[in-house]
Amino acid sequence: MNIILFEKDELKDSRVILTDHRAKHIVKVLHSEPGDFIRVGEINGEIGKGKVLAIQSKYPFLVELSVSLSDKPVPPPPIDLLLAMPRPIMFKRILSQVTALGVGTIYLINANRVEKSFWDSGIINEEEYRPHLMHGLEQAVDTRLPQIKVFRHFRPFVEEYLPDINSQYSSLIIGHPDSANTLSHCLSKNQGRVLYAVGPEGGWVDFEIEQFLAAGMRAFSIGPRILKVDTAAVSIHGRISQLLG
Amino acid sequence: MNIILFEKDELKDSRVILTDHRAKHIVKVLHSEPGDFIRVGEINGEIGKGKVLAIQSKYPFLVELSVSLSDKPVPPPPIDLLLAMPRPIMFKRILSQVTALGVGTIYLINANRVEKSFWDSGIINEEEYRPHLMHGLEQAVDTRLPQIKVFRHFRPFVEEYLPDINSQYSSLIIGHPDSANTLSHCLSKNQGRVLYAVGPEGGWVDFEIEQFLAAGMRAFSIGPRILKVDTAAVSIHGRISQLLG
Repeated sequence: MNIILFEKDELKDSRVILTDHRAKHIVKVLHSEPGDFIRVGEINGEIGKGKVLAIQSKYPFLVELSVSLSDKPVPPPPIDLLLAMPRPIMFKRILSQVTALGVGTIYLINANRVEKSFWDSGIINEEEYRPHLMHGLEQAVDTRLPQIKVFRHFRPFVEEYLPDINSQYSSLIIGHPDSANTLSHCLSKNQGRVLYAVGPEGGWVDFEIEQFLAAGMRAFSIGPRILKVDTAAVSIHGRISQLLG
Repeated sequence: MNIILFEKDELKDSRVILTDHRAKHIVKVLHSEPGDFIRVGEINGEIGKGKVLAIQSKYPFLVELSVSLSDKPVPPPPIDLLLAMPRPIMFKRILSQVTALGVGTIYLINANRVEKSFWDSGIINEEEYRPHLMHGLEQAVDTRLPQIKVFRHFRPFVEEYLPDINSQYSSLIIGHPDSANTLSHCLSKNQGRVLYAVGPEGGWVDFEIEQFLAAGMRAFSIGPRILKVDTAAVSIHGRISQLLG
């Protein structure tokens, strides 16, 4: 945890009282004492300093902070992710990793090679996935929660929703090993928002690729190596960030 | 497993007999039958096809293949990794991820913020780490095992070994949030080999950064976001690969 985050409604008269894992972190990892300053931020708000007013360093932990917010968080790169529903354990890791790297919206969709059981795991409920987004923000010193939008059916997403959001993006791109395009064919420095798609284990089926291309996405290849979903999501995010400059 | 790999000495008269997890994979995941062809490769050798000659599809599994090797594996990108010894569970994940992405040599070194216990976990023994390299190769359809070189002491590495290998690289680079250089300042398209350094959780200490710079490494920044070690290793690999083109 490189920043202690709190909800807007936890802040009262410039003070926050923490009694959960955040208090434990301040006691056990930061070893803070009254008078110390620690980095804090309001979720979807500003970043600043919290002065430790009171601390109870034995269980049950309690930390009272006097908060002064002064800085906007660093803007995330203009990147959104279109992700075929992954295995839940991998989904959690991807959420915290791409949140740490910086992402605006994650569209979670169904695909032919997504196992049906993944949808029943509970991880698509906000109270289940939100802690993994929080981990990413706490890691990267950010306060902006990515938006998660869930589409249990492929066709309505690609036939209706995707054409609707198309105009928000300068580039909508999808990795496809057969493509002759490289990523740099699809993107240019200082362009607008990018939406990049990462498929399920085993890849998109041909019908899905055709539908994405018909909806205005461009295919690119990063070479013949087959990557796991989490490796692809992080590595391609790195490549796009590098190209956007 | 996108390719079945075998050791050179498992191949006898163009045949390989598998009885371990590879046989189980061929039976349970590929559902192969006699006469089918599957993608195979010799570790550190060529890629080709294996024709299923015989199969025992109940435990104990057994698959006999007639092997014909024809293709060199795709060359990995000219990238090596200098890695401060991570937490073992993270080390395993990094090994399979960077092996899948393609890496030549991984130098594993000590650093001030590396917990001593990480070195005692057994994961630095070849029989412990090799399966994670194999997973990366099997994922990416590659046969070339990365080399792992272990340095338990920081100073001899940076003062003696690093100057010795310096001339093998066009660029030796180290991420450092305070640097004014971007990654593209440090690298150019179609240049030679790159060595990139990824520090421990909590980062390198100033002394270590000074020593790396004195040994000819260049610092770069990818912005203020603080990344976990595995996210940084994969994301920066993506950025470098993109720049090398």
